[in-house]
Amino acid sequence: RIMRPDDANIAGNVHGGTILKMIEEAGAIISTRHCNSQAGEPCVAALARVERTDFLSPMCIGEVANVSAEITYTSRHSVEVQVNVMSENILTGAKKVTNKATLWYVPLSLKNVNKVVEVPPIQYARKEQEDEGKKRYEEQKLDRLETKQRNGDVILPVINPEPHTVGYSQSSLIHLVGPSDCTLLGFVHGGVTMKLMDEVAGIVAARHCKTNIVTASVDAINFHEKIKKGCVITVSGRMTFTSNKSMEIEVFVDADPFVDEPRERYRAVSAFFTYVSLSKEGKPLPVPQLLTETEDEKRRFEEGKGRYLQTKAKRQAQMQQAAQ
Amino acid sequence: RIMRPDDANIAGNVHGGTILKMIEEAGAIISTRHCNSQAGEPCVAALARVERTDFLSPMCIGEVANVSAEITYTSRHSVEVQVNVMSENILTGAKKVTNKATLWYVPLSLKNVNKVVEVPPIQYARKEQEDEGKKRYEEQKLDRLETKQRNGDVILPVINPEPHTVGYSQSSLIHLVGPSDCTLLGFVHGGVTMKLMDEVAGIVAARHCKTNIVTASVDAINFHEKIKKGCVITVSGRMTFTSNKSMEIEVFVDADPFVDEPRERYRAVSAFFTYVSLSKEGKPLPVPQLLTETEDEKRRFEEGKGRYLQTKAKRQAQMQQAAQ
Amino acid sequence: RIMRPDDANIAGNVHGGTILKMIEEAGAIISTRHCNSQAGEPCVAALARVERTDFLSPMCIGEVANVSAEITYTSRHSVEVQVNVMSENILTGAKKVTNKATLWYVPLSLKNVNKVVEVPPIQYARKEQEDEGKKRYEEQKLDRLETKQRNGDVILPVINPEPHTVGYSQSSLIHLVGPSDCTLLGFVHGGVTMKLMDEVAGIVAARHCKTNIVTASVDAINFHEKIKKGCVITVSGRMTFTSNKSMEIEVFVDADPFVDEPRERYRAVSAFFTYVSLSKEGKPLPVPQLLTETEDEKRRFEEGKGRYLQTKAKRQAQMQQAAQ
Repeated sequence: RIMRPDDANIAGNVHGGTILKMIEEAGAIISTRHCNSQAGEPCVAALARVERTDFLSPMCIGEVANVSAEITYTSRHSVEVQVNVMSENILTGAKKVTNKATLWYVPLSLKNVNKVVEVPPIQYARKEQEDEGKKRYEEQKLDRLETKQRNGDVILPVINPEPHTVGYSQSSLIHLVGPSDCTLLGFVHGGVTMKLMDEVAGIVAARHCKTNIVTASVDAINFHEKIKKGCVITVSGRMTFTSNKSMEIEVFVDADPFVDEPRERYRAVSAFFTYVSLSKEGKPLPVPQLLTETEDEKRRFEEGKGRYLQTKAKRQAQMQQAAQ
Repeated sequence: RIMRPDDANIAGNVHGGTILKMIEEAGAIISTRHCNSQAGEPCVAALARVERTDFLSPMCIGEVANVSAEITYTSRHSVEVQVNVMSENILTGAKKVTNKATLWYVPLSLKNVNKVVEVPPIQYARKEQEDEGKKRYEEQKLDRLETKQRNGDVILPVINPEPHTVGYSQSSLIHLVGPSDCTLLGFVHGGVTMKLMDEVAGIVAARHCKTNIVTASVDAINFHEKIKKGCVITVSGRMTFTSNKSMEIEVFVDADPFVDEPRERYRAVSAFFTYVSLSKEGKPLPVPQLLTETEDEKRRFEEGKGRYLQTKAKRQAQMQQAAQ
Repeated sequence: RIMRPDDANIAGNVHGGTILKMIEEAGAIISTRHCNSQAGEPCVAALARVERTDFLSPMCIGEVANVSAEITYTSRHSVEVQVNVMSENILTGAKKVTNKATLWYVPLSLKNVNKVVEVPPIQYARKEQEDEGKKRYEEQKLDRLETKQRNGDVILPVINPEPHTVGYSQSSLIHLVGPSDCTLLGFVHGGVTMKLMDEVAGIVAARHCKTNIVTASVDAINFHEKIKKGCVITVSGRMTFTSNKSMEIEVFVDADPFVDEPRERYRAVSAFFTYVSLSKEGKPLPVPQLLTETEDEKRRFEEGKGRYLQTKAKRQAQMQQAAQ
């Protein structure tokens, strides 16, 4: 579809969140279709996890987003989908790859939302594809168990924070979940959640460096908990790390089912977003260093540095591999 | 209502699809109100057909759209509505007629969606009005039967197409039908469908001629099949004909009820859109000729030429009549 | 959240209606949460009244709106919420107070929408707070009874009106109530209604003075009647009074439950909006005087003048009090 002014920031760059929402919608459609392709229990595929996603080049207002999706692996109860996004300037005809994302879906029964339906197996062209898929499946399963641990954190407001401290840029928004945010099952689309997360992360990044910022990448996101229609969700973000030219922001989503449910507010999702700051010519700008004050902030900064160096190393390894 | 940036293209011209959506909403309201005006079975009017619609002058961001609707004929089971759209520049006070559209609605029972309710007859000021309405009713009925034939066509992707061929500009998008797209009966508003069709046709036209394009007219559209909430719809468009200064694009809408329904993907609507290319000053520009390759493409080009010449002749006849 | 192009007029000023909608959403969330905080009947808070609200400074595209809400009084069946809106330019860090609004909500049972649930009492820091809240509660109760009287008025179209007469600028729009406009109970959010009212009032003001206009204030609004999903609402506005630099516009909302309900069209809400006209530099401009023709128009002009002088006197008294 054509990118509109509301999809983009003032500089005309389409929000990473808008792109994530399109990716998730494509993934939900293809996996729901696959899971209903054999006469079985009708079901809707719910997003369980998005793998780390890089934004390779910016998309602008007026460009057309081409989204293509393919199922690359099925386990008994989950579907792996690969989604590619290309931006196309329909006036010049120029096309660029914007994103390649991998998503995991789990089919939930339309009749009983707590029941996971069985996934019809796909056919692989080569045996190695199945083996590689299985490896990816096992890896993400492990990773999902790990991240379940650090979910208890809360972001508290800070009075009169100094510039470039964590408290200075931290932000949150609330959103009342309406019908157009939800699937047929009455739960929030993963893509809607990611769009809100990107919005908060973008505000944190802009508050920190006071320039035009764009989403560079999103770390793997696990959707542990569904969010029901009528909930209020609070999306909070704080900066955890800065390198010379990038910022890492941690975003939490808390759901509060305050009507008609005997349930406490709970953490539904959390993730790390990386932003870069761009000059008017679209060149990356230096980023002011994050000032850490508390022990927790220093620890998170070091952890962020670890993730940054790990990603950098991985990318260099891939480039070397590609150069061979 | 006031036209917003999201309603328009980058040049500030409001999308024909946005206008069609407003027209259809007005038509649905007036005909639903009429069909419920007598104590009978509660019902919702569903769009059955839109007659050929010309876009007489462009509408811009910041202008106010004035939409007025009137019931001009009722048969036992259908309602003809005439909708006029005026654009008003509220700063200068200038008003222009943008569209005159004729729509046919059929009232479906709220209790049983497959039951068509009886329409209360309207009063005519003159007997001729009823006779003319009856003639229009018979004509559209005939036309609807005819178009049911050519519905089986599919648009296939082309690898590395040459510029200005059919394969070069053909486009498609998918859309997941959400609650805000639907009527009280849970079926997609005709206006929502037409807006998506115009979006795809506009992408096809822009890909072909790489300039600012606007909708000039839409041929009669028949809504043979309802589309239910939760379906995925695929909207595909391909160019069929070019004259010196206009392009004709054929658009198909296919619905895929992939969840909770034992039904195959089916063709819901198809239609022809005509676009013109505009210079920065708003003058019509020459259009590159469409290169036809296959026999089918050549045949469709000739058919398009036939429609083009027929419309041109009809318009000249009307102008002569008006001049007398 | 970040203000987008669709939230604003062509000059980049965010519509008062967009701000009112955010205020109401925040109020609905905090009061619904409060009313469900004790194990009782699940309920949804419905907007009963908004006190007079001034727009203290304009908000622009790209700024972040910070909305904070606090419960300031509870009676047995109603909740008073104070909502503050700050605009923040995230690039410069500048913050300004945009609005302070007071809203009254009534909790309606989720099981039986006609039943008002009991409100859990809040704790007051000081006894005076409770007394002052009770005084405000009694005042608004009185005022709500009063305004119930003048609800019968209808706005009729005028043929070829003279510039600057009432008939010249009067406007109306219709809107079909969809699912995303509604609460969990299936009734229109008060904020959605206020946004439409502001849209019509803004068109009336722009038609009158042909310049960039912004909402300056909204008089107290009482929501006497709920509006159900599937209704058509007609929002009509007419100018009642002009001072040198401001315009007062009366707005009516009529609901027409034309499907599946044995009920006549009824007046749901009415309110007075005040607009000012701004130059390109953001300075208030003189406003052309309203030409009154009929006795009713002259009477309404005098009543508007009374409200204008009363507000002016009240503001001067507050400024003197603040200066002491």
